[in-house]
Amino acid sequence: MKKEIDFMRRAIELAKKGVGRVAPNPCVGCVIVKNDRIVGEGWHKRFGGPHAEIEALKKAGSRACGAVMYVTLEPCCHFGKTPPCTDAIIKSKVREVFAAMIDPSLHANSKGIKILRAAGIRTQIGLCEKEALAINQIFLKNVRCKLPYVTLKVAASLDGKIAARTGDSTGISCKKSLKFVHELRSEHDAVLVGAGTILADNPHLGVRLIKGKSPIRVILAGGQHIPASAKVFRDKNVIVFDSRRNINFVLKKLFERGVRSVLVEGGEKVFTSFLEAGAVDRYIAVIAPKLIGGARAKTPFSGKGIGEIKSALILKNVEFIQIGCDMVIDGLLNLY
Amino acid sequence: MKKEIDFMRRAIELAKKGVGRVAPNPCVGCVIVKNDRIVGEGWHKRFGGPHAEIEALKKAGSRACGAVMYVTLEPCCHFGKTPPCTDAIIKSKVREVFAAMIDPSLHANSKGIKILRAAGIRTQIGLCEKEALAINQIFLKNVRCKLPYVTLKVAASLDGKIAARTGDSTGISCKKSLKFVHELRSEHDAVLVGAGTILADNPHLGVRLIKGKSPIRVILAGGQHIPASAKVFRDKNVIVFDSRRNINFVLKKLFERGVRSVLVEGGEKVFTSFLEAGAVDRYIAVIAPKLIGGARAKTPFSGKGIGEIKSALILKNVEFIQIGCDMVIDGLLNLY
Repeated sequence: MKKEIDFMRRAIELAKKGVGRVAPNPCVGCVIVKNDRIVGEGWHKRFGGPHAEIEALKKAGSRACGAVMYVTLEPCCHFGKTPPCTDAIIKSKVREVFAAMIDPSLHANSKGIKILRAAGIRTQIGLCEKEALAINQIFLKNVRCKLPYVTLKVAASLDGKIAARTGDSTGISCKKSLKFVHELRSEHDAVLVGAGTILADNPHLGVRLIKGKSPIRVILAGGQHIPASAKVFRDKNVIVFDSRRNINFVLKKLFERGVRSVLVEGGEKVFTSFLEAGAVDRYIAVIAPKLIGGARAKTPFSGKGIGEIKSALILKNVEFIQIGCDMVIDGLLNLY
Repeated sequence: MKKEIDFMRRAIELAKKGVGRVAPNPCVGCVIVKNDRIVGEGWHKRFGGPHAEIEALKKAGSRACGAVMYVTLEPCCHFGKTPPCTDAIIKSKVREVFAAMIDPSLHANSKGIKILRAAGIRTQIGLCEKEALAINQIFLKNVRCKLPYVTLKVAASLDGKIAARTGDSTGISCKKSLKFVHELRSEHDAVLVGAGTILADNPHLGVRLIKGKSPIRVILAGGQHIPASAKVFRDKNVIVFDSRRNINFVLKKLFERGVRSVLVEGGEKVFTSFLEAGAVDRYIAVIAPKLIGGARAKTPFSGKGIGEIKSALILKNVEFIQIGCDMVIDGLLNLY
């Protein structure tokens, strides 16, 4: 299977080029192989654009006849923004299709595979499935839970503080990390904070340090009055929720409005509510090599907490990335 | 100066081989160069053994005559465990000596340099001084402050907790990190903890996971009774101090007993007292990608803390090292 794995890995590499550009679609890559040589490649480049399979078939042309297709996701079989890929595959006379994973969407869910098989094309599912699942966590949560994917981003000192006892939190992380945060914002549909963060820091929460679209801003507010002059209101796309609402209710409402991913940016209370609700899918800590101290300083996770270390929430697929002076620790709490 | 810098860097590399083996002496490396070629090298290998200069001169033999010596520390001029290096250097007819830094010890402090100059040997001080100072921080603090060098080691979760609300702290970091902690212990003369840590965790605090000598154990205890059955008492080398004593008093007493380096291992109160006293020279955080949570969970730095982020304690010379599943962040709060 060595050869087959290499071809599928190439398809996954291609799929990754679409990360952050194709939502709410999944990222998909495709490679067409004849006599052990790649004769066509493609990936899904932008929402509404042609699917990876169609791009690859176009490149392969008549060489697709009798060839093997490696695609990271089960080919679609319905009319969406584009016609069904299964029709094009059958027409191309590809003889075998390797799909890394099934598309769990209602209109797919093995239907595409069945259609290919009925047309006499051999199919195999599950080659490099883990890698294929990993690059489409947002899509998978959306489809399986009908909820937005939730990333929690926290900037903390080495002693785990997100603000000093006075509430000051400006400048914990370095300038390069700020740019990274703006990249994160541009990759999410919405940024969510508590009213306390708006009142304490008056953040704009938009994307300025890089080119990219600014996300919707979501504020969880209780009784607090947020002045109309707050920087966050400079853009029009702000939604305010009653902070006494259950986290799942908020996420459901956001999903209904088309929000597929949320970046939770603070503060302590909001972080804690999300963590206690089990609603955090990805946790990103930007750790600055500084010490803030203070029994009353804010931390990223207060509340009751766990009783024994063995019940701690453990991050999976952890990545460590040094950004400027800071260390970014990025991992998953839920896998879809 | 390019050539000279390269030779001194080689001497520093050699000096580093002595780290952790020569205390209370400094680490020293030496290179002897004739016609741009190294004709002799040496480093101080163990306390009481020959100095780096003597080793290098022995290797160089008669080629030392007219050669240039690169040494990371001013050569000694007194009879200690071995005769003065200055005598041997003069006798060897070396024509020039580059020393990276002055030895601030009372019996040295430029005296060695003056003796060489009086004998007609050209001397230059300060080449690669920063690197030479960096490898001898323990020695420099000992000489300048007459106090042991203090390393604080903390194992924390990603949300900055060192124990759950129940006090449980067992198993925060991974097994490989534990081995790293045992290495740290074996490199320090003493390990210091509060009585609370002994009562909560009953640690042995010795070196077991690697080969190495176990440090003296120092316990800061207030009114608490520590049972004689506590694991820490299995070895005989335990000193108990009244925790109401000033940190500087404790460090002074330890220095008088010959302790040149202390590893502070917990808990929250002890960490906070040391940090508030400005007594921590090196801060090592072993961060596990887990979340513990809890407003009442322990953190590495409580107390009053700083008021504004711009007054945060900032680590210098920071190193990030991945050990097993954990990220180790290692930096200096004081430079000597």
